[in-house]
Amino acid sequence: MCEANVYLKNGDHEELFMESVDIIEPHGEGLKLVDIFGTQKFLMAKIKDMTLLNHRIILESVDNSSN
Amino acid sequence: MCEANVYLKNGDHEELFMESVDIIEPHGEGLKLVDIFGTQKFLMAKIKDMTLLNHRIILESVDNSSN
Repeated sequence: MCEANVYLKNGDHEELFMESVDIIEPHGEGLKLVDIFGTQKFLMAKIKDMTLLNHRIILESVDNSSN
Repeated sequence: MCEANVYLKNGDHEELFMESVDIIEPHGEGLKLVDIFGTQKFLMAKIKDMTLLNHRIILESVDNSSN
């Protein structure tokens, strides 16, 4: 199975946000994630880095109030 | 192996752009793709849809001369 774990970059470290993600679809400024069980999550973030062989997808929050 | 094939959406159909992609990194308006052999490609595009279990990543060209 080739699902990936999605991490959310938070400063210097990365927090696991969702495991076993199959589908990623951008919608506007955010991303819809669907895992292999059909659970859906939506968050305001963009993809920062993906390494599929490592099953790792790193997201970065989209902050509307940019500095 | 969990690499994916990357397709570029062109109107109604999708053209295979790169096979066996491991790494995807956004850089500015474009994406850097690296396959499992280390070959790198860069193109002006954004991710439209990803289904990891199907090993399919669909990209859409970024047109700077937007209407």
